[in-house]
Amino acid sequence: MSIRAIAINCTLKTSAKSVKTGEASSTDRMISVLADAFRHHGVELTQTLRIADYNVLPGVTSDEGEGDDWPRLRETILAHDILVFGGPIWMGQIGSIAKRVLERMDAFLSETDDKGRMPSWSKVAVAAIVGNEDGAHMSSAQLFQSLNDTGWTIPSVAACYWVGEAMGSTDFKDLERTPDKVTQTAAMLAGNAAHLARLLKDQPYPGAG
Amino acid sequence: MSIRAIAINCTLKTSAKSVKTGEASSTDRMISVLADAFRHHGVELTQTLRIADYNVLPGVTSDEGEGDDWPRLRETILAHDILVFGGPIWMGQIGSIAKRVLERMDAFLSETDDKGRMPSWSKVAVAAIVGNEDGAHMSSAQLFQSLNDTGWTIPSVAACYWVGEAMGSTDFKDLERTPDKVTQTAAMLAGNAAHLARLLKDQPYPGAG
Amino acid sequence: MSIRAIAINCTLKTSAKSVKTGEASSTDRMISVLADAFRHHGVELTQTLRIADYNVLPGVTSDEGEGDDWPRLRETILAHDILVFGGPIWMGQIGSIAKRVLERMDAFLSETDDKGRMPSWSKVAVAAIVGNEDGAHMSSAQLFQSLNDTGWTIPSVAACYWVGEAMGSTDFKDLERTPDKVTQTAAMLAGNAAHLARLLKDQPYPGAG
Amino acid sequence: MSIRAIAINCTLKTSAKSVKTGEASSTDRMISVLADAFRHHGVELTQTLRIADYNVLPGVTSDEGEGDDWPRLRETILAHDILVFGGPIWMGQIGSIAKRVLERMDAFLSETDDKGRMPSWSKVAVAAIVGNEDGAHMSSAQLFQSLNDTGWTIPSVAACYWVGEAMGSTDFKDLERTPDKVTQTAAMLAGNAAHLARLLKDQPYPGAG
Repeated sequence: MSIRAIAINCTLKTSAKSVKTGEASSTDRMISVLADAFRHHGVELTQTLRIADYNVLPGVTSDEGEGDDWPRLRETILAHDILVFGGPIWMGQIGSIAKRVLERMDAFLSETDDKGRMPSWSKVAVAAIVGNEDGAHMSSAQLFQSLNDTGWTIPSVAACYWVGEAMGSTDFKDLERTPDKVTQTAAMLAGNAAHLARLLKDQPYPGAG
Repeated sequence: MSIRAIAINCTLKTSAKSVKTGEASSTDRMISVLADAFRHHGVELTQTLRIADYNVLPGVTSDEGEGDDWPRLRETILAHDILVFGGPIWMGQIGSIAKRVLERMDAFLSETDDKGRMPSWSKVAVAAIVGNEDGAHMSSAQLFQSLNDTGWTIPSVAACYWVGEAMGSTDFKDLERTPDKVTQTAAMLAGNAAHLARLLKDQPYPGAG
Repeated sequence: MSIRAIAINCTLKTSAKSVKTGEASSTDRMISVLADAFRHHGVELTQTLRIADYNVLPGVTSDEGEGDDWPRLRETILAHDILVFGGPIWMGQIGSIAKRVLERMDAFLSETDDKGRMPSWSKVAVAAIVGNEDGAHMSSAQLFQSLNDTGWTIPSVAACYWVGEAMGSTDFKDLERTPDKVTQTAAMLAGNAAHLARLLKDQPYPGAG
Repeated sequence: MSIRAIAINCTLKTSAKSVKTGEASSTDRMISVLADAFRHHGVELTQTLRIADYNVLPGVTSDEGEGDDWPRLRETILAHDILVFGGPIWMGQIGSIAKRVLERMDAFLSETDDKGRMPSWSKVAVAAIVGNEDGAHMSSAQLFQSLNDTGWTIPSVAACYWVGEAMGSTDFKDLERTPDKVTQTAAMLAGNAAHLARLLKDQPYPGAG
């Protein structure tokens, strides 16, 4: 069975800004580590949606009206089996663009099928988190709670992250090499997510009554 | 395939204290709602371990030495397929006894098999949370992050909770009837957890390399 | 000494949207409860900035360039002694617009004076949080940590909040009357914040060296 | 005016265990950094209470009965003007012993004087957090929310912490020298806390009506 993953990059910077400043995205690098790991498990990570490049309006419905890019992002995301939710830590917490995406998924709660299942049912979500320093656990706590509330399944060992020493300023994108612990975690995460996505695609949750 | 669930009740009160004061445990009542829901999905919730009745020593290993009851609690928990992690909210967060249990599971990180899998691999965990007031989401965020870090898989919609209005003082144990929303969430949670536990018991995560 | 407070309302809805739908803002109502309480302590709450009405660009500097409304919002906020940080709970956490404001304050960390003091030094911040249901404590935890990291002082009992019963759908704006517990908390909060702001305005932190 | 600080060390290890294994406490080292910083501001940190050495019973009252050491710890803590709340990160969150202390302070909410003020009124609390890796911001968020709910005032820049790189295993106690960022933060924290404690001791919160 073919399993496809998609990543979202919730950096605060647009691609245009990255090009202008010549700065790569640390979240992109972490997603790339995971894409490699997924490939070893036969899962293609088809694309990364850089949310800052789109106009995702604030709100908690699936379509906030004119100019809202979320409807097509939502459709693209839901056409995949695995969501790699990537984003940076700011202020020790997951960034505001990630939070906005989570809020838009709040709509899933009222978009259930006749068996009470949300659009995310039988899909798997994992976290890819980066920061100069501390905040990865708070971020994954925020992500797992929100993603689970909105119907996603969280495989064993679903967070791959990197942060530097307390109050540090090194970026993941600037590390000479990817730390072994990150590569090992990525391998375990990808294997678990791929396995679970296959099981659930083959035998989805039955839903209510 | 036979699937068995076990619950832990992380109330701060011992059973003896409950008997003495005649006060039931709100967490027990929530676990009981879930036990009913699991039964409808063919899953037996075999027992509830009231952690406060045991001497679980502080620490982050699986055996903290003389007088430590954790080794046998750990063994009992791991003899099941589904863990219902139940506990009360205190100060807007999951209680200290729940936190202690999570800390003891930290040892799983260094107890991996030859394929890098923790003792909790291919097992499913869900949350049963109660409080007079606000704090359920912070509690489930804390639980999901910690349980996932220590290898547990989190099924879709894995938190069943009840809290009253802000700054309220009503207990779940004293509600005349269980709110429909709680019963419905319990049904969905149990169906999802049972399904996922069956899939993973039949086809466990392959692990690394 | 004259003390002035300002509120920010981090609802996801613009004022135009509220007018169009005829829906008041629950956060506005909570801010109004606090404004009354502050008045009893001789503190004027001069205005409420509805952040969604402005174009606050994503980023972590004090000026993200063309079209960014943050520079003048920042100036207005810092011209006051007390910040009432108001916002709704979404997904059990503080909303994305609140998070964006916090991120913009991250710049304070590098905008210190010659004594190492941030632009927020000797200023006081409090939280005004509303939601249909659970999430107030996680929100105030997020706010207090971020606001404190960026230099604000948090007076005793600095969170005034309201949420309904678990999984409820009642809005604070629709309550027939403000619950006594909310009014009492608002009174205590305002008294403490006013007192502390006066002390710190009269005798600011000395800073380093 | 003489200002006195006290520290609590919420490590999971007893002093006896530390002596036996020859392992110092990283939290003690961080408290020591802060004690030096406080001394420069004329504040004596009189003692450190190692909570694991006492029998602090689970519960949310100020006296949980026979064998409970909390009543005298509580009295000692409240005889000071500044509380340095120290503890280690476990599982990305503040440890269970810290959480237990916070729960015991929950009783303050119902121990108000005739002006509605808790036993902690006009007292200042700061956080001293250490860990091998990530979790300091989640810990300070938990601490600030709980301590503020129970009446403590949080001065500007009230968290001093150290953690290593993601998934690292270095302890703060084993660092050859204290990082400059930690020393600088400690200096700012101590200056702010000392200043605020003096102001509030001289002119306490007036309380309600």
